[in-house]
Amino acid sequence: MFELVNKYEKARRGTLTLAHGVVETPCFMPIATKGAVKTLSAADMAALGASILLSNTYHLLLRPGLENMKKLGGLHKLMGWNGPILTDSGGYQVFSLSKMNKTIEEGVVFQSHIDGSRVNLTPELSMEMQRAIGSDIVMQFDDVAAGDSPRERYEEAMERSLRWAARCRESFDRLRQGHPEEAQPTKDLVCAGREILRFALDDRSALFGIIQGGTHEDLRQRSLEGLVEIGFDGYAIGGLSVGEKREDAYRITEFVCDKLPEDKPRYFMGGGMPEEIVHYVNSGVDMFDCVLPTRNARHGSLFVWAQDPSTIDWASNPTDFYKKLNVTSEASQFSDAPPDAFCDCSTCTTTSQAYLRHLFSVGEILAMRLATIHNLRFYLRLMQELRLYTAKR
Amino acid sequence: MFELVNKYEKARRGTLTLAHGVVETPCFMPIATKGAVKTLSAADMAALGASILLSNTYHLLLRPGLENMKKLGGLHKLMGWNGPILTDSGGYQVFSLSKMNKTIEEGVVFQSHIDGSRVNLTPELSMEMQRAIGSDIVMQFDDVAAGDSPRERYEEAMERSLRWAARCRESFDRLRQGHPEEAQPTKDLVCAGREILRFALDDRSALFGIIQGGTHEDLRQRSLEGLVEIGFDGYAIGGLSVGEKREDAYRITEFVCDKLPEDKPRYFMGGGMPEEIVHYVNSGVDMFDCVLPTRNARHGSLFVWAQDPSTIDWASNPTDFYKKLNVTSEASQFSDAPPDAFCDCSTCTTTSQAYLRHLFSVGEILAMRLATIHNLRFYLRLMQELRLYTAKR
Repeated sequence: MFELVNKYEKARRGTLTLAHGVVETPCFMPIATKGAVKTLSAADMAALGASILLSNTYHLLLRPGLENMKKLGGLHKLMGWNGPILTDSGGYQVFSLSKMNKTIEEGVVFQSHIDGSRVNLTPELSMEMQRAIGSDIVMQFDDVAAGDSPRERYEEAMERSLRWAARCRESFDRLRQGHPEEAQPTKDLVCAGREILRFALDDRSALFGIIQGGTHEDLRQRSLEGLVEIGFDGYAIGGLSVGEKREDAYRITEFVCDKLPEDKPRYFMGGGMPEEIVHYVNSGVDMFDCVLPTRNARHGSLFVWAQDPSTIDWASNPTDFYKKLNVTSEASQFSDAPPDAFCDCSTCTTTSQAYLRHLFSVGEILAMRLATIHNLRFYLRLMQELRLYTAKR
Repeated sequence: MFELVNKYEKARRGTLTLAHGVVETPCFMPIATKGAVKTLSAADMAALGASILLSNTYHLLLRPGLENMKKLGGLHKLMGWNGPILTDSGGYQVFSLSKMNKTIEEGVVFQSHIDGSRVNLTPELSMEMQRAIGSDIVMQFDDVAAGDSPRERYEEAMERSLRWAARCRESFDRLRQGHPEEAQPTKDLVCAGREILRFALDDRSALFGIIQGGTHEDLRQRSLEGLVEIGFDGYAIGGLSVGEKREDAYRITEFVCDKLPEDKPRYFMGGGMPEEIVHYVNSGVDMFDCVLPTRNARHGSLFVWAQDPSTIDWASNPTDFYKKLNVTSEASQFSDAPPDAFCDCSTCTTTSQAYLRHLFSVGEILAMRLATIHNLRFYLRLMQELRLYTAKR
């Protein structure tokens, strides 16, 4: 599934061959939380050069729900997106979004943040829901410790995540074996007149384990050894980007990457700023997701290149290769210039800062869309430049 | 400026040659109230086949304001829209939107609905603002009577609108003559790297008068005679689509069209449903705007063809050629079908009813955008079919 194409020091360039297509790594996954990247269609994502999207099991479990998702034929068909999809397991969201939650060995009991209804999310239900979604990459269900927890809590969450990882592996494999009729890729889904490719889960879908343990190296070591023993198609670094010091996140990421098998993809969950992404790539991470480009865009905060990105020496872990442009500020009021002179996105080639500022000031939804297009293109371009840099070495 | 290409009974097909391009009539003008058609960019509008947009002087006068609009170089440059723009004069909005307003012979004093500031909008200020916007078609400033007014109020508003029409004509002409340096079309505007064509106001911009008088034929007659005597580049029918009976609107529109000069375009302001548009075209109207397609879209209400639109006998004033689809209803929940099987818009060729319904149910902005694209395409296609129908006769 993963092929390591070449390396430069610890930075890796590779390909992920998934049920719905090939993804070049390192890659960035725009977040389609509820089945849409906010303000953008599937066609927009393809035009931006996104090769894989991330969606959230928690949100889709609440709406449209498990049985409805089965009837709808999965998320690819629902969205009209033909490329790969990774789904988070819901472990993180039940803590950050649900009104009340209680973790027991069986799973997590929580109240929906939508209607207050009670849901019992277990590793097995998470697998079933991700299967109903039709995810190319299924994430294990994990127990997530809050960012400021004592060591005991990190240890408990890590150990429970390991036990849940084993249950996820078993459940995932059982779901595959139980459906031999789906062994072949099929092309039988048609939606709004278009053919949507469907590959069966047991054909090429992947299951990733999640390494927990906070900033404690011994807990991280125990976690990754336990996961590797169970055996997964890829390994994610969870529980970072939750308020810890940046140097701790850098240290733990490098520590983990140095110990992970070379032939499996590594996914840093939920982070971070552009210079952090660069640092993690230089530590050997292959996959990223982050809400920053989309969330910041909706508030008028844009990531813009400080120089031609093809001229940047990425191996030096640069931090000054971009600036943040607050397009709602007075400085943009009469500016004919595009938000980013080095950007090739549809926003920067058609829209002035003055127009974006006007749209934000009068509350037009289009402002959020145009800014989202740019910020996602910035992150996707960043990954492209990082891949090219490694490829040339 | 207007060329009548051919007629079938009273229906007209023509071309409007404006400062920023040629518009085929009958035409529909999507509404870019605050400088954007809600959720859509200028590039989106071009892709939908829109040839002319409408924007609102009232909203642009409040934000960005007259002096800022001058500094910004006009709305074409601000929006990145190279096609024609018609601007409403603000007469209607000061009544429907401002917190307090008082009409005196000089103009209308009102409080901004944004910040409560006091603004005195006169015919002369409306002309200056529309000039700053760079409108291809400038509308006269008019006094608008509420839909349920007594005859005396309609008469007063109509007579005052006539006096204001004369002031608008004079002010518009003075503004043109005062700026001989703008006599030639220029191409000096560059925005976000793209060249925006600018033609001077005195080159090819047009001024339209607005016929008032409610549903009273004698008042309408007096209004149109007064306006024709002053002389305008086109004539609008104002003060309809405000709650009167449909047959009264039909009767007045036909009455007015029968008396207007053949060689000038006629614009029905603010209406209406698809079957009303057809009826007005069959009475001799050339231009339309309406909030229904965009506003309804944002609530999940879609106009969909009941049959292949190229097969419809428009001269029979059909009313059953379309249906309204409420895509938030349960009937759409599991539908793989596009919203409209006869539509060629990007929404209908990529999106199922099930996805649109899901996006509305989880509150994604994308839902409003996809629905807006379809409804505008429906109205623009309607005009295209009406033009083709007349062309073939």
